[in-house]
Amino acid sequence: MVHIRRHLHQYPEVSFQETKTAAFIANYYNELGIPCDTNVGGNGVIATLKGKKAGKTIALRADFDALPIQDEKDVPYKSKVDGVMHACGHDGHTATLLILAKVMKEYQDQLPGTIVFLHQHAEEYAPGGAKPIIESGAIDHVDAVFGTHLWATTPVGVLQTSKQAFMAGTDRFEIIIQGKGGHGAYPHETKDAIVIGSHLITQLQQIVSRRVDPLDTAVVTVGVFEAGEAFNVIADKAKIVGTVRYINPELQDKIIEDMKCIINGVCISSEATYSFNYVKGYPPLINHAKEAELVLRIAEKDIEDIYKAEEINPSMAGEDFAYYLMEKPGAFFFTGAQKHADPYPHHHPKFDIDERSMPIAAKTLIQAYFAYQEQE
Amino acid sequence: MVHIRRHLHQYPEVSFQETKTAAFIANYYNELGIPCDTNVGGNGVIATLKGKKAGKTIALRADFDALPIQDEKDVPYKSKVDGVMHACGHDGHTATLLILAKVMKEYQDQLPGTIVFLHQHAEEYAPGGAKPIIESGAIDHVDAVFGTHLWATTPVGVLQTSKQAFMAGTDRFEIIIQGKGGHGAYPHETKDAIVIGSHLITQLQQIVSRRVDPLDTAVVTVGVFEAGEAFNVIADKAKIVGTVRYINPELQDKIIEDMKCIINGVCISSEATYSFNYVKGYPPLINHAKEAELVLRIAEKDIEDIYKAEEINPSMAGEDFAYYLMEKPGAFFFTGAQKHADPYPHHHPKFDIDERSMPIAAKTLIQAYFAYQEQE
Amino acid sequence: MVHIRRHLHQYPEVSFQETKTAAFIANYYNELGIPCDTNVGGNGVIATLKGKKAGKTIALRADFDALPIQDEKDVPYKSKVDGVMHACGHDGHTATLLILAKVMKEYQDQLPGTIVFLHQHAEEYAPGGAKPIIESGAIDHVDAVFGTHLWATTPVGVLQTSKQAFMAGTDRFEIIIQGKGGHGAYPHETKDAIVIGSHLITQLQQIVSRRVDPLDTAVVTVGVFEAGEAFNVIADKAKIVGTVRYINPELQDKIIEDMKCIINGVCISSEATYSFNYVKGYPPLINHAKEAELVLRIAEKDIEDIYKAEEINPSMAGEDFAYYLMEKPGAFFFTGAQKHADPYPHHHPKFDIDERSMPIAAKTLIQAYFAYQEQE
Amino acid sequence: MVHIRRHLHQYPEVSFQETKTAAFIANYYNELGIPCDTNVGGNGVIATLKGKKAGKTIALRADFDALPIQDEKDVPYKSKVDGVMHACGHDGHTATLLILAKVMKEYQDQLPGTIVFLHQHAEEYAPGGAKPIIESGAIDHVDAVFGTHLWATTPVGVLQTSKQAFMAGTDRFEIIIQGKGGHGAYPHETKDAIVIGSHLITQLQQIVSRRVDPLDTAVVTVGVFEAGEAFNVIADKAKIVGTVRYINPELQDKIIEDMKCIINGVCISSEATYSFNYVKGYPPLINHAKEAELVLRIAEKDIEDIYKAEEINPSMAGEDFAYYLMEKPGAFFFTGAQKHADPYPHHHPKFDIDERSMPIAAKTLIQAYFAYQEQE
Repeated sequence: MVHIRRHLHQYPEVSFQETKTAAFIANYYNELGIPCDTNVGGNGVIATLKGKKAGKTIALRADFDALPIQDEKDVPYKSKVDGVMHACGHDGHTATLLILAKVMKEYQDQLPGTIVFLHQHAEEYAPGGAKPIIESGAIDHVDAVFGTHLWATTPVGVLQTSKQAFMAGTDRFEIIIQGKGGHGAYPHETKDAIVIGSHLITQLQQIVSRRVDPLDTAVVTVGVFEAGEAFNVIADKAKIVGTVRYINPELQDKIIEDMKCIINGVCISSEATYSFNYVKGYPPLINHAKEAELVLRIAEKDIEDIYKAEEINPSMAGEDFAYYLMEKPGAFFFTGAQKHADPYPHHHPKFDIDERSMPIAAKTLIQAYFAYQEQE
Repeated sequence: MVHIRRHLHQYPEVSFQETKTAAFIANYYNELGIPCDTNVGGNGVIATLKGKKAGKTIALRADFDALPIQDEKDVPYKSKVDGVMHACGHDGHTATLLILAKVMKEYQDQLPGTIVFLHQHAEEYAPGGAKPIIESGAIDHVDAVFGTHLWATTPVGVLQTSKQAFMAGTDRFEIIIQGKGGHGAYPHETKDAIVIGSHLITQLQQIVSRRVDPLDTAVVTVGVFEAGEAFNVIADKAKIVGTVRYINPELQDKIIEDMKCIINGVCISSEATYSFNYVKGYPPLINHAKEAELVLRIAEKDIEDIYKAEEINPSMAGEDFAYYLMEKPGAFFFTGAQKHADPYPHHHPKFDIDERSMPIAAKTLIQAYFAYQEQE
Repeated sequence: MVHIRRHLHQYPEVSFQETKTAAFIANYYNELGIPCDTNVGGNGVIATLKGKKAGKTIALRADFDALPIQDEKDVPYKSKVDGVMHACGHDGHTATLLILAKVMKEYQDQLPGTIVFLHQHAEEYAPGGAKPIIESGAIDHVDAVFGTHLWATTPVGVLQTSKQAFMAGTDRFEIIIQGKGGHGAYPHETKDAIVIGSHLITQLQQIVSRRVDPLDTAVVTVGVFEAGEAFNVIADKAKIVGTVRYINPELQDKIIEDMKCIINGVCISSEATYSFNYVKGYPPLINHAKEAELVLRIAEKDIEDIYKAEEINPSMAGEDFAYYLMEKPGAFFFTGAQKHADPYPHHHPKFDIDERSMPIAAKTLIQAYFAYQEQE
Repeated sequence: MVHIRRHLHQYPEVSFQETKTAAFIANYYNELGIPCDTNVGGNGVIATLKGKKAGKTIALRADFDALPIQDEKDVPYKSKVDGVMHACGHDGHTATLLILAKVMKEYQDQLPGTIVFLHQHAEEYAPGGAKPIIESGAIDHVDAVFGTHLWATTPVGVLQTSKQAFMAGTDRFEIIIQGKGGHGAYPHETKDAIVIGSHLITQLQQIVSRRVDPLDTAVVTVGVFEAGEAFNVIADKAKIVGTVRYINPELQDKIIEDMKCIINGVCISSEATYSFNYVKGYPPLINHAKEAELVLRIAEKDIEDIYKAEEINPSMAGEDFAYYLMEKPGAFFFTGAQKHADPYPHHHPKFDIDERSMPIAAKTLIQAYFAYQEQE
């Protein structure tokens, strides 16, 4: 498992371009003698292991894309691809699932039901790989879906999940304010895009402070403000780029409407025009209560490497596993993979996982599979 | 002169209700034997002294209304009317002009031209008395108009004026923002009028900082912000009242449009509605260059009590003498009347003038009259 | 029960002045022959009914103060006290508990444990009556506390509670900004308190939008903004009054620090000074999970008038019942008492309850009492 | 004159690197036989033509640096240097002065006084060439200084100047706000530099709207706002760059203090730190009244090509000619050089002048020289 993970770690590929990784996976299944479909919804690879006993069909998902980040770790398995890195642990997800497949292949005779090994591409970059995989019909026949994320800021031996919303909806927006540039000494002949943009950002704070139910969770963050080129020239244009996060699915359209309303009003107040491009990203990941309970139960009872299985508040990060849960029962959970006392977070150039987390993830996934077979 | 002024000081009357003062003035002219018209454009009194020699007809103006302020001075001639006070020196203007009339009556035989003693009511309260007096046709036959203000913050012996704009345009506005009230714990069910109003006031700063030519002069001041009654109830309504000042007459309509634009945009951004009531007050008082030069010249050469005659930047206060100067040549000037080293400003409950300023004002006005007779 | 409630409704008394109501209650217990303490922690009345069988001591709490609101209902039992009204249903709470006491007195022989009838004054006005009652030692010997609020916006037959935070912490603040007043035309000689206050309010939005964890719940509302008296005078002072609500107890001190930081910075940026008075009100009401479960269980199983017992999100309103739960196990719940399809909310001049809710409340409280006796 | 100007136009050099142009100028004087100093205060060239008659020593100044702008004109004399262009007319200034020198050399015998041909480098880039030239002592012996700017937006035949302030003080500032970056979904763990910067810019509007005397002239423009790199990452740093313009020299230090106060307060309110780098540029150019009157007089009377000589409001642009006028009497004026009905402004890639303006400028300068000789 470590071997595979480190191999993948050295040859990362960014989202939607992960063809070699897909080929590596497909080849692995071919060698195992497990039939698999490739190019599912893009670069997805889906292997199917039918047990000899009757039972449910359950998908176990691992994503396999990497990030456009320069690896700054000093380890033998450091990325060999310049500017690309497995900085989120998807290499570990893949290794976990492949070894799990290898083991289960040996027990195929005793296996009840059917395991769908769902290797998904492009989790890191919306619109993501989950959606086209679903649209391809690949999980139509599946009864439930389970997945995990190796989590670098949770200690090894801890499992975390939620019986309801577990990860946030994550959207992206870009606002261009078009004012009118001019000489810095003659503001009255211009429409100062920097002043307009500053008012806009100030006023956008009201979405969370005044417009969203205090009992709901929402974030509106402007990550980029770019305007102007010269100290003595009034900028004609301001570019404002950011992200929206929310837990309650009903909030998404409300926040879009709130933003439109505020942008429109601020621009009217300044006689400016604008473009507003809002890209809906992954929806909130909402676990199914029964399946999440099942995961918590088996984690507590059946996996001795797990000393704590806890319900936690939702993470504000996003995951396109959300789409599977909109179609099928299932649950997503974090498998503790913290390497140091003060770990580098996900997407950090020095991100790494404790590889002991991988067998734990594998055991949890397969125990969930078995437990679900027995569930009414 | 002092006697009359102190008498008037004890019996002040507020703008548009100054009937007894008007009767006092008319009676004075009757006793002098100078014909006068009463109820000119309201409570105005206009006396006309035709000289025996040919010449121009020149109006000398004094206003005579008082203010709704409680007199807090400790002097024998303190106001006897509760809550009303000559806190701007109009009593002095009137006494100056009456005594001047008395003196000139004696010299009627040698007098060239015609002096129009223009006693105007209601200078303190827009729309003021000057406008209806002009509309009554009372100055149609006049060749020029001069006037002065006894100025409590300028030393006695100093005359101040300008060859161009000398006093500001002064307007008033009231904005009502109509949001939607509600429980302080449920902002998302409301449209918070206090937050909307705060954004509006913040954004109104841009009129002066970004929308008006830096070489022009403008002030937008919010003097009153009233909203809400209970700490835990979100206010549905905010009342925002203020003043606009400007020197360049073209700015008035521009600022109104700018305000409309900003108010409208801010309310759209918050889904609130509003009313905007803008009351145009007195226009900027713009002296005529030749007549102002004449005043400066005679002040320097002919009035020995004046040791300095200077051009100054415009005052940001307003004066409806402005209307006369839109119709006729003329000039307005300040006659220094400072009483103490650290004088109380105009409209202060302890305001007072140095009465030695009154004969100086009288001499300047009549010398301007004579000088204008000789001017081509 | 209806009779008592309507009697109390006609003779409401505001918080801390509810002496006649206290006397009425004490008298009732005296007539029942149940011993009671009066003037507990103020106007509190605590009656104690010892059962003949061994068991736990459990307090059932009802508050009895009214509000300074003019009753605008058109009913025979309308308030007879001008400007005072039971606009929150505390009259119903009291009637419920008194009749319950009367009934239980009859069954004293079979009664296990001890019922403490806790009649609390001054719930409506912080610092409230609960705190001094606790400090008097009156609940020291109590094993658990239960209480309910008749809830006018929840249908009759519905019970609502939460296993964790159920009602918000509710604080109050007052900020005085001291700038420097002056003439509306001379802003540069002043420190404009209205502009400063507007910036402050704008910036206070960031507490919720940027400084509080999006997964936490907080509200910062400014309910009152008062500044300035004349349209043409720049205000020297602005009064800003508001409320803070929060669920997570750790947020309270954080928000106070955040407010201090923002107020201080805004005033420094404007060279103004300020006073900031923050009054901590009731803390969040956090139910004990076991006791809340007990209430939900008996409501579902034992009270046939209740067709739905549900867990709900916390209410953003406050309750000083919170203090009891910081000392003792227990739970607080809402008993549906909605009168009309579109009911008037609590504290409305036309507020009223459906009186059928009172026996339901009584049954739930006493069933909780019995169930708690049996609990390990 | 056209020939020289077009030659220079093809070989522009940017400020402080204009060595070839300086050599060209020096060579020209050498060939004329007029002694000249080179490397004065940098690349300055000063030629001195002593008349045979007694008289005053008067400097006539022309600047000769170009701008880092790509010439986009389609003319035979287009710049041959990539990315460098005479986009402000300094080539014309130089040609004017050189030809004037050539002509005056011929009349040296009849010439009263001494003409100092002051060829200044580096006007376009503060701290500029004027200051080191003055510090070199090169104008110590000079009685007065005159200079002109060919002005592309004023019609040929029009001369513009002012008897007082004629051009603005022009400064530059850079503010770096240091907050704390972080994940876009966790604002409470960060100090959002974009939100802080937006508040700062909003509040900077108050300098002009509330802190500067409405009768004064000031501009505070932010020309650049740069912060953040990724839509979902909260920026730790914001860069805010801008310019300040003012006419009244006393305003400079006041505005610096106002900015410090606001930046400091805003950063305190957000717990951020900052750096504030304020670079004082050229001071306001304040003409001497007598010398400006002299220019207006001779323009009206003695130069037939000038059909209008007018006093205008100050330009908000800056000029380091200001330094000469802080040391010596003199005046600066605009010589109309507008080429088209809708001309390209100074510093535009298509900027050009009407070359007929050059002889007019030459005549005005030399007439001012002669008139000043006669002045008491």
